[in-house]
This record gives sequence, structure tokens and C-alpha cells, in this order.
Amino acid sequence: MATMPSLYFDNAATTPMDERVLEAMMPFFTHNFGNPSSTHSHGRNARVELEKARKKIAALLHANPGEIVFTSGGTEADNTAIWGAIPAYGIQQIISSPLEHHAVLHVTEHAASRHQIPRRLLEVSAEGAVNLEQLDQLLQETPNSLVTLMHGNNEIGNLNDLETISETCQRHGAYFHSDTVQTVGHYPLDLQSLSIHAIAGSAHKFHGPKGVGFLYINSNKKLPPFIEGGSQERNRRGGTENIASIIGMAKALELAQEEQEQHQQYISGLKDYFASRILEVLPQVTFNGLSAHSSQSLYTVLSVSFPPNEATRGMLLFHLDLKGISVSGGSACNSGARLGSHVLQSIGADPERECVRFSFSRFNTREEVDYTISQLQELYTN
Amino acid sequence: MATMPSLYFDNAATTPMDERVLEAMMPFFTHNFGNPSSTHSHGRNARVELEKARKKIAALLHANPGEIVFTSGGTEADNTAIWGAIPAYGIQQIISSPLEHHAVLHVTEHAASRHQIPRRLLEVSAEGAVNLEQLDQLLQETPNSLVTLMHGNNEIGNLNDLETISETCQRHGAYFHSDTVQTVGHYPLDLQSLSIHAIAGSAHKFHGPKGVGFLYINSNKKLPPFIEGGSQERNRRGGTENIASIIGMAKALELAQEEQEQHQQYISGLKDYFASRILEVLPQVTFNGLSAHSSQSLYTVLSVSFPPNEATRGMLLFHLDLKGISVSGGSACNSGARLGSHVLQSIGADPERECVRFSFSRFNTREEVDYTISQLQELYTN
Repeated sequence: MATMPSLYFDNAATTPMDERVLEAMMPFFTHNFGNPSSTHSHGRNARVELEKARKKIAALLHANPGEIVFTSGGTEADNTAIWGAIPAYGIQQIISSPLEHHAVLHVTEHAASRHQIPRRLLEVSAEGAVNLEQLDQLLQETPNSLVTLMHGNNEIGNLNDLETISETCQRHGAYFHSDTVQTVGHYPLDLQSLSIHAIAGSAHKFHGPKGVGFLYINSNKKLPPFIEGGSQERNRRGGTENIASIIGMAKALELAQEEQEQHQQYISGLKDYFASRILEVLPQVTFNGLSAHSSQSLYTVLSVSFPPNEATRGMLLFHLDLKGISVSGGSACNSGARLGSHVLQSIGADPERECVRFSFSRFNTREEVDYTISQLQELYTN
Repeated sequence: MATMPSLYFDNAATTPMDERVLEAMMPFFTHNFGNPSSTHSHGRNARVELEKARKKIAALLHANPGEIVFTSGGTEADNTAIWGAIPAYGIQQIISSPLEHHAVLHVTEHAASRHQIPRRLLEVSAEGAVNLEQLDQLLQETPNSLVTLMHGNNEIGNLNDLETISETCQRHGAYFHSDTVQTVGHYPLDLQSLSIHAIAGSAHKFHGPKGVGFLYINSNKKLPPFIEGGSQERNRRGGTENIASIIGMAKALELAQEEQEQHQQYISGLKDYFASRILEVLPQVTFNGLSAHSSQSLYTVLSVSFPPNEATRGMLLFHLDLKGISVSGGSACNSGARLGSHVLQSIGADPERECVRFSFSRFNTREEVDYTISQLQELYTN
């Protein structure tokens, strides 16, 4: 009997860990187990490595070590940046977009309500482009705003132009946070040249461990702690430092940045190959957002819109799963909820069409693409 | 040249991981890397194990699986339980004690201030016993209170009587949260028989990994999410589940509970041996709080008060560190701050005396105690 294939095209949900990352983590699961906040030798041995990891991450992002706060992931980083900024800077308005991840969308909704300030969601085009002229206009009216716009969209792959957004925010003196969870480790980020106050990173999106991330917070912008307790992270985040995972994250980011160009080239190639192959066999498919435009979308994400079909009847994900192909429709971060995608809804996607997000990593191959295309062809032509 | 000894008596700060825990985690760092919230096979393979871990932890605590929310640690669990309860239950008063961990002390201070409700800290005796008659009295005046009192104190080891406290709270209809970070995995906890609404656990305090913990929240008490984002943990905690560490925590708790009696016997024996040996060689030492009373204190913690001494001159921890002995003064959770201990201050400890917390685990030996005693003797008699 043939083995069931197991293909993973859901790398925007989570990525397999690089084995070099695990290797870097191992000493902290065994002999180097000290609490980095302890002052004795066991603690110092861990502390030294913790601070090296912080320096490494800071250097890779062209930031200062003091600007990196370790968190339990991207979601906590987003929560910290948004909840903290409003009282700290007397924010009078939140400006965001309907395409943001729930870690931003839900938090801005509740933070605006608690602080009784308006939240404005920018208009988006049918391709998911955010209206940046409207941003400029809104900031003209209320300069003291918190602007939170993601870098790369996790569902449709659209890239926001961080340079233009940060320049606009700087011109008006607004506070700018960006959920960069899909781009950290995949694109070079230069926080020295970008005028951005806070970004969020999540290690498991770039072949690091789950349960760890970081918040970059510009040294000119102090934030109160969100998780409060001990004086860890210079009083910015209570709780014993998750040293093994932090070391893993630093290693993963280092590898990702060192090998960034070759990964980008390889993965872009796979994505383009997938897009052209699927159009060959199923010319009725379209691509959501800007995901087929290589310079305007994540090279890791291709969001495909399939025509209504008798054979799959709204169960395309399920049929692909049966073929051993793991993909998601919408953001897998919350696919457990089985709710429709707020992103696809916001860009006015046809609810009759089934959308599948194929998201790639350097561990995927052309053979996997070929297999997937052939399975899709079979599903749609039977 | 002789090798420098390396003794670890700081197990209340963090514990070395059990190798069986690491073994249980490994598959989730390699092939079983899926996002538990993804609906495809990679996700389901992780999800199944996630829910098994939840069931295991719930069963060990005599709770229901739906009452366990995974967090990034004890501090996040405490934050979640306290911040969430106040608006959810229209809490009118917070009752706590000055001996609580900063994860409770700082959070109650800020939560009381934000919600403009009083926070009352119960009186404590010179031995660190909390005045439970005063608790009863305060609850009589304001029954709709949030009571947060820890189980075992991390600095002086005092055990609070959870049964009496929970009965008192139940009688008045108060919401009762307990920071049980020092006792989960070390004492059997029966959440079926105790009337307690929320407790916090932290895996690295019982030979599990750092960066993971849990909040138990009674099924009758719903709480809003603290970290908000996706719909993970039944909408109670956003962020991709830290599956490897959760598996590790479940394994660590299972081992701890299975072997609980023998560990308790062994570690209690070590602590008693330490206490009697140190009194033999340095009869001027005393013990802080109730830490020398075996039934009223953590069997893992001995808080020793040393007389002022010319040789160490306030640098006892440093001298012990030079001898290869890792211990802490006060809570190592925030020893980085180098502030005096609020616990020792609250029980009126003599600031002229140096206090050292020796905290033990099943990996410590009598030989290590003997070496430590001999080094202390040398320091104090030279």
C-alpha cells in the first residue's frame, strides 16, 4: 500500500522548526537551566545568553538591544503595543484597517471602547489596498493618533508600504505600530531608517519555536508593562524569561536573515510556479488581493479563489486534507472558529467561491506543487 | 586543579527540567509541528495532543478540562484572573496580603486604582501568618470582594490554609483566586473539594519548561481574555498554542503527582537535615516566617536569617556564589532589581541580618547540604 502523502502548505499559520534552532535551544533544556533573573552563577550563565540573543535580534533589525522586549508571541506583543500606547501618549484616535489580524482588530476595538476614543478603519480597495490618502486626511484632523497597520497580510499576502505610512505618521507626529508577524525573518527590516514606534515578531513564523516573540519599542517611546509582575525585561514584562525559546528565536532570525535572499528567490519561484501551473489547469481560478503581484505581496502567500464546484461543494479544504495536503482557508490562526474570513469579506470576495491560502516555505518543493496541482485538477474535472 | 563545585539550592526560582519532560516535548519540535488551531491533519495531530494534555492536567487537579486555560506562565495567569474578575463580577473591593508575589501585588494595586475600588492588605504576624479573622470581617462588610491569597509563599515558605480561606470566601460569596505557583506539582490539589475560583500554575517550578503555565478557572466563573487575538483556548487566550511546552508541562505535572509522596519525603528530609545541621554549626541563625515548621511551610523552602557578620558584610549571597552555591535572598523572580524583599519587610525582619532562601528539589543531595554547611561554617568562623 502506498504511503499517504503529507504536504504542508500552511506556513503562514506556523512553520516547521529548523533543526539548527533546536540544537541551539537544547543546552537551556538541560544544564543551562538557571533563571536569568537570578544573580548567582546559574542565573548569570542564562542571563549572558539572554542578552546576547537580544543584541543579535536588535542588530538584525538595526535596532538597539534596549528596544527589544521578549514576549510569549506576536499576539502578546500587539496587545502590549496597543493597550500601552493609549494612556502613555494620550492617544485621541485609533486608525487601523479591516484587514488586520484579530490580535490587532479585537484589541483596537476594545481599547477604543474602554478609552472612549474613536476607531477609524481605513477604506480598502477590492484588491485589499489600504487608502493611505485617507490616513493622511484623518491624521490632519487628529494628529495625536495611534496608527496600526500590518506589514504583510496573513490571508491575502498584501504588503503595506511601511515607508509611506511611517513618513505620513512622522509628518503628523502620530504613534505608528505595525504587526510585522508575517514579514520578520522574511524581509529585511531596517528600524533605523523607518520611522516606526513598535513592531511585533513571532518566532514560529520563521522556523523558530512557538510560544515566543518580541516587541520592538522605539527607545523614545516608553510603554507600561502589559503582563505585570517581577522586574524582568527592565520592568516592561513580568514573568520568568523563556530563555530556551528566546535563544531559539534569535537563532531562527539569524538564519533567516543570513539566508534571506536565497530563501526569497527559492520561495518566490515556487509561488510563481504554483500560480502559473494552476492557471494552466484551472483557468477559472483568480487570486485574492495582490497575492499574484510579486512585489506587492508576501512571496510566501498565494490566496487562490476557486469557482463554485459540484465536486467539492464548499468542502475544498476537506478534500485537499484527504489527499494529504494541509492548507487553510483564511487565517489558520483562528480557523478553529470556523467563521468566515473578515479579510475576504472586507475586500468583497464572492462568498460563493472557495478560497484557499497556499503558504510556502523553503522546505517545500516543486514536486509538492506538482502533486497538489494534479490533485486540484482531478477534483475539479471529475 | 579541583573542579569548581556547582550546587543549585534555588529551586523556588526555577527547577532543572526532568529529562522525561524533554523527551515528551521533542516530537513537537520536529515532525509534529502543526498549529493546533489549524483544521488539517498537521493541525489535528497537534490538537489531539494539546487536548490530551489539558485533560491530564485537569484530572490531576480534579478539575474539568474546560477549566484549564494555557498561558505563558504563572504571572500571565495571575494577571488574567485578577484583571478579568473585577469587571466580570462587579468586584467592589480587593483583599490580599503584603506577602504576595509581585505578579499579584502589583496587579492588584493597579487594578484597584484603575477600577477605583479599595484594596485591603490583611495584617500579617511576625511569623508571616495572615490574619484570617480580619478577612472574615472585611468580607462581612463587603461580600462582593476579590480575595487573592497565595498558597505557598515563595520567599519564606509559609503555607496559607486554603481550606479555611475558601470556606470563608464561599460563606460570603466572594471570588477567590490563589497564586499556587509554588505548590502545583508539590502538593496534591483537589479543586473539586476546595471552593476556589482561580489558581495559577507555572511549569518551570515543577521540573517542566519555562514560558508556559496555566490558569484554572472554575466553570461557573467566566473570564474575558487578557491576551486578545484569535479564538484559541475557547476565546479565552489569543495566540498560537505553545504546544511543545504545554505537552512538557502536562508530563512534568504527571510525574510530579505520581511521585509526589516520595519527593515530599525526600525533600522534607533534606530540608530538616539542613535546618538541624546549620543550627549545630551556627546556633545564632534563625528561620524566617514559618519555614522551619514542616506542616506550615513549603517542604522545598528554608529561609535562613544570619546574624550580622564582619566576614560577609552584607555580601553573603556573593560569597556563597564564589563557593559554587546558588541561592537567593528574597525572591529570585525579581532579584535582578536588587531591591529589598517586600516580604521580609512586611514581617518586620531585622534589616541588619542577611537572609538566604535555600530551596530544594529532588535533584539535591545530602552531600550538597554538607558541603554548603561546611562553607557557611568557614565563612562565619574565619
